Amino acid sequence: MPTNPDLLFPAEPGQRALARELYALAARQPIISPHGHVDPALLADDQPFPDPARLLIVPDHYLTRMLLSQGVRPAELGVPTVDGSPVESDGRRIWRRFVDHWHLFRGTPSRLWLEQTFREVFDVHTALSPATADEVYDAVAAKLTRPEFRPRALFERFGIEVLATTESPLDDLGRHAKLAADGWGGPGGRVITTFRPDNVVDMEFDNWSANVDQLAEISGEDTGTYAGFLRALRQRRAAFVAAGATSSDHGHPTALTLNLGESEAAALYDRGRRGQADAADAEAFRAHMLVEFARMSLDDGLVMQLHPGSVRNHNKWLYATHGRDVGGDIPQATEYLHALTPLLDAYGNDPRLTVVVYTLDEYTFTRELAPLAGGYAALYLGAPWWFLDSPEVLRRFRESVTESAGFYNTAGFVDDTRAFCSIPVRHDVARRVDAAFLARLVAEHRLAEDEAAETIVDLAYRLPKKVFKIGVQQ
Amino acid sequence: MPTNPDLLFPAEPGQRALARELYALAARQPIISPHGHVDPALLADDQPFPDPARLLIVPDHYLTRMLLSQGVRPAELGVPTVDGSPVESDGRRIWRRFVDHWHLFRGTPSRLWLEQTFREVFDVHTALSPATADEVYDAVAAKLTRPEFRPRALFERFGIEVLATTESPLDDLGRHAKLAADGWGGPGGRVITTFRPDNVVDMEFDNWSANVDQLAEISGEDTGTYAGFLRALRQRRAAFVAAGATSSDHGHPTALTLNLGESEAAALYDRGRRGQADAADAEAFRAHMLVEFARMSLDDGLVMQLHPGSVRNHNKWLYATHGRDVGGDIPQATEYLHALTPLLDAYGNDPRLTVVVYTLDEYTFTRELAPLAGGYAALYLGAPWWFLDSPEVLRRFRESVTESAGFYNTAGFVDDTRAFCSIPVRHDVARRVDAAFLARLVAEHRLAEDEAAETIVDLAYRLPKKVFKIGVQQ
Amino acid sequence: MPTNPDLLFPAEPGQRALARELYALAARQPIISPHGHVDPALLADDQPFPDPARLLIVPDHYLTRMLLSQGVRPAELGVPTVDGSPVESDGRRIWRRFVDHWHLFRGTPSRLWLEQTFREVFDVHTALSPATADEVYDAVAAKLTRPEFRPRALFERFGIEVLATTESPLDDLGRHAKLAADGWGGPGGRVITTFRPDNVVDMEFDNWSANVDQLAEISGEDTGTYAGFLRALRQRRAAFVAAGATSSDHGHPTALTLNLGESEAAALYDRGRRGQADAADAEAFRAHMLVEFARMSLDDGLVMQLHPGSVRNHNKWLYATHGRDVGGDIPQATEYLHALTPLLDAYGNDPRLTVVVYTLDEYTFTRELAPLAGGYAALYLGAPWWFLDSPEVLRRFRESVTESAGFYNTAGFVDDTRAFCSIPVRHDVARRVDAAFLARLVAEHRLAEDEAAETIVDLAYRLPKKVFKIGVQQ
Repeated sequence: MPTNPDLLFPAEPGQRALARELYALAARQPIISPHGHVDPALLADDQPFPDPARLLIVPDHYLTRMLLSQGVRPAELGVPTVDGSPVESDGRRIWRRFVDHWHLFRGTPSRLWLEQTFREVFDVHTALSPATADEVYDAVAAKLTRPEFRPRALFERFGIEVLATTESPLDDLGRHAKLAADGWGGPGGRVITTFRPDNVVDMEFDNWSANVDQLAEISGEDTGTYAGFLRALRQRRAAFVAAGATSSDHGHPTALTLNLGESEAAALYDRGRRGQADAADAEAFRAHMLVEFARMSLDDGLVMQLHPGSVRNHNKWLYATHGRDVGGDIPQATEYLHALTPLLDAYGNDPRLTVVVYTLDEYTFTRELAPLAGGYAALYLGAPWWFLDSPEVLRRFRESVTESAGFYNTAGFVDDTRAFCSIPVRHDVARRVDAAFLARLVAEHRLAEDEAAETIVDLAYRLPKKVFKIGVQQ
Repeated sequence: MPTNPDLLFPAEPGQRALARELYALAARQPIISPHGHVDPALLADDQPFPDPARLLIVPDHYLTRMLLSQGVRPAELGVPTVDGSPVESDGRRIWRRFVDHWHLFRGTPSRLWLEQTFREVFDVHTALSPATADEVYDAVAAKLTRPEFRPRALFERFGIEVLATTESPLDDLGRHAKLAADGWGGPGGRVITTFRPDNVVDMEFDNWSANVDQLAEISGEDTGTYAGFLRALRQRRAAFVAAGATSSDHGHPTALTLNLGESEAAALYDRGRRGQADAADAEAFRAHMLVEFARMSLDDGLVMQLHPGSVRNHNKWLYATHGRDVGGDIPQATEYLHALTPLLDAYGNDPRLTVVVYTLDEYTFTRELAPLAGGYAALYLGAPWWFLDSPEVLRRFRESVTESAGFYNTAGFVDDTRAFCSIPVRHDVARRVDAAFLARLVAEHRLAEDEAAETIVDLAYRLPKKVFKIGVQQ
Repeated sequence: MPTNPDLLFPAEPGQRALARELYALAARQPIISPHGHVDPALLADDQPFPDPARLLIVPDHYLTRMLLSQGVRPAELGVPTVDGSPVESDGRRIWRRFVDHWHLFRGTPSRLWLEQTFREVFDVHTALSPATADEVYDAVAAKLTRPEFRPRALFERFGIEVLATTESPLDDLGRHAKLAADGWGGPGGRVITTFRPDNVVDMEFDNWSANVDQLAEISGEDTGTYAGFLRALRQRRAAFVAAGATSSDHGHPTALTLNLGESEAAALYDRGRRGQADAADAEAFRAHMLVEFARMSLDDGLVMQLHPGSVRNHNKWLYATHGRDVGGDIPQATEYLHALTPLLDAYGNDPRLTVVVYTLDEYTFTRELAPLAGGYAALYLGAPWWFLDSPEVLRRFRESVTESAGFYNTAGFVDDTRAFCSIPVRHDVARRVDAAFLARLVAEHRLAEDEAAETIVDLAYRLPKKVFKIGVQQ
């Protein structure tokens, strides 16, 4: 059966009818995806997707971590190992093993996303269960061989207007050049990049110093000094802007910012380069670089995205066995008010700067995030991130931040995903939740229906375009 | 059109009908406003209000901060500058500029308050929009010239039984004397004062030491010693009680309390007076003074209000340009359990003491605040404060604290406002939210309807009178 | 009148009908009570209960603390004093005094529990009020004299399949031996024990060192050394397993774990035994012992329960006057992520280990607890505990943790109560809240009804049996 038209709408009939009308306005808007982790090679090469398990299960750490939590090892699901030791390689066996644990996902967003992906992307309407695992697998697999299921065709079908990928300054942006050559990329293009410098800024990153050497190479600037390091970063930012980037992205363990003097920053940098920086030095340098990047943004206009609060690779066995980004990260309590003070003191009231702040800690919504976003011109609130990118939290986000920050200090939905096929459903869920929230405001006589109608379109389309400066160069 | 009778009530018809019935009982209760910041001169002098912009926009930092968050400078809205440099002075231009950004307030309490103020106070029913800005301005302006829109006439029309203003110990209470002479003030009167000693207790306050000198003058006590300082404070408290005060109020960055020995407290005081106190000394002295004030309360009966957790003047540019109380404060995480221990150890079980604790940090409701209020005789929970004085948080407050503290360890609604015309709507919103919450309890068979009916009247009227000892002296 | 069939169900008719159907499936399941504080003597001796006040009021600190919060001293309610000074001894007078304050409990779980206990356990349907206090008292008192109101008869009537009590390693398990002899206890029996070693592990416990001496006596192991102390604990665990225990329980002020080397742990132990341990030593030793107990669990299979975050005896007057467990404890902010790291590093991915973590701090649900439970094989989330064992929080628990952890990383409801007669209603409330939550998922087209039906039975019965290994030995 098709996606129920009332998916995620409240049961009360009057409110539901309002939600349906508001949602209809959002549903027809193009998708703006200003932040995510889709591999640009996917769209540059436009090759067919692999089998259903390799497309939908193996790379999705939301799925493999849930099975790990019930004792199913990632290797049994085909997740590659660091040392190359063998893992399950049979797509169908991976699929069946996954489906045997399908009940674990009841009430989770992963379940919603997968179900709606089956229905809306693959036109497969059989309810997934151990009994139907093969049937669904075969139906999806059959679709994947067709030309209309290649990435670019899906991109069109999904109604994506702009998709931003995320690259490190060490990336040569070759795939984006290919996209531009094909009429798909470049400034104002459909696929753009994002400048994500963590691997050359975070001294605790694997091989930081070697990365900084590579930065010298790719930028042609001497990174032997802090001044040269800054020049190299500015040079790479210019290259990213030329490849269409409208924003940078920064993933730090905390939200700390520091506005150090140049000599102090240089001393930290030198200590790091000599291999003598400790954890406090690394934290201070990351914090300072956020203010440095804000200064660069004043010149080149890149929107800053901050993603603080993730303890990376908390599950050490998982990290040792399978490496990064396989589901071993856990959020930690995140303080924003004092942490962001140096950045806000410097540029918080400067309308030239846009900073989008995300959180993994919803227990800052009303206390810090909404008051800050409602009080500084530069600050916007990013959509609930990662563990929070779910219907219940999307609802609580609106219920919590709107009263102090309004709708217009939020930045619109961001899917933040590697899973290309899940992009439409993720945006759809956010649009449905926003429609339900606005419907409640209307039903409770807190907002006129015409204003709700304008707001839902703003949230779905106009606001993310404006905040992320999408299409501004067009 | 008039305020919708179902404003803020849940959509489900059965529950809505219950909410409407319960609300009707609350709506006819007089307003008890035991804490706020209305200028007593307003009612002492009873002069006509200025133009609509100066009445409703310029002094309301909820409004000006939201526009600042979207790049509109407070000076463009007429907010006075510290250095006296000119700001927009044309009321109509301020009004139009504000209305151009009216959409920013969708989903905020400011919108509800303003809309209902137009309707209920000024009988203006045109929906506000850039197209109707002048029409609304003119309609409100026309009303403001009439005698029935003078402060005392509105006070009567609003059904306010008692309004407490807030003064420092350095205030000579002249306006309250005038009110008393007119039959409006004094013990048991309609307009009473509140003892707010932050400017003579907080060593980090601007001009603290000079303030303490002034305290000597106004009290006739020698504040050269700590003992004299305490005598001066007791003397001023007596003067406030004589002017009708039933409570004191304490706005500190944290909730810390300390019960120091007299010599230690005196040493802190002396250090402060010599200009040698550091931040830790200032914090310790503030903390100790809370316990000292509790001791004074045992004698003179003043209810203690604690307002911790605001980082004042976080937006430094705003503070430098426009000063205090213009929207630059931000909440910080607030710890209550360990912070309040010294005070509670000393007097927490003493029925002679009443302490009303407020919070800007809702992420303490179930963990600390409700268990404390449900476990100590002296403690009551104040209404959600400031950034939290909104329908969604008022609802979450009841949903969170009632289960451990019940209704009767909460202190009733407090509007805490400078905006005289918004007092009725603020109380109305709180009453509507409480009605909706009680209606849910009844609809879910958790409370009998007659008990809900008694409770809504208690919350709206009887409880704040009792907790704040309003009318006890009558 | 009987318990309303729609108690706690949402008002919207469609959702309510779904909730009713789902609840009906849960309601007929036996009760699994894997953690609580019922005195085993109650069921071992099977004597009649005392008068209604002594049964339902005096020992229930939820009730006596609420009255204390409004100035009624526990002695007036018959709570025994530490020094033996006299307290109210007349059951009827205690009852009347309590009922005079019945309105304090509006909106609290205590009210729900008591009302439903009257109705469902005692078949008393008069609404409690000062006017009916005696009538209800007499009706309950009359029932208590009958044989079908003895503990074992009620156990049968309540449909309890297994009830776990909680004992210290110093308990000789005599009452459990009696129960086993009567066919009620022992491995796989109806009444089992739980191993709770806080009084021999926590150096800050009253008489810790003397307790450790007693441990030597009861175990026959020499606790003069750390190695002997561990042997004694293993020996007592074996005795508990033989008495039917399937889990241990650990109540610590924080969730800290440490995996110290043996010599370091032994040095801490020796310092403690010499009376030279400070607070940091005590915290480190408690933390280390959690990892030590995890190691023991790998061998003997006991499920570990962690109950962190309670500041015991916060109300010092209450502690001095009436001792422990009379309502003077308050929750504190609890950090899980970093605190549990040593334990999770060691055994978090080990499927042989089961750790059930509880919380008094709901502001960790989405940030730490759900991501951890959804990412480690060993970890399960216990039901909301104590101040959080209420309808609103049970609902928020599901709304918060399900999206990251699913239903199947939660451990099922735990009543954690001393109040034997309240066991059925406590489970009933949890089942109703889960039914309402699942009904919402179905109504919003997020879950198929047949899956919701399977899930509600899992939550009510199958999951706690599995997680707590109940009946595994049968």
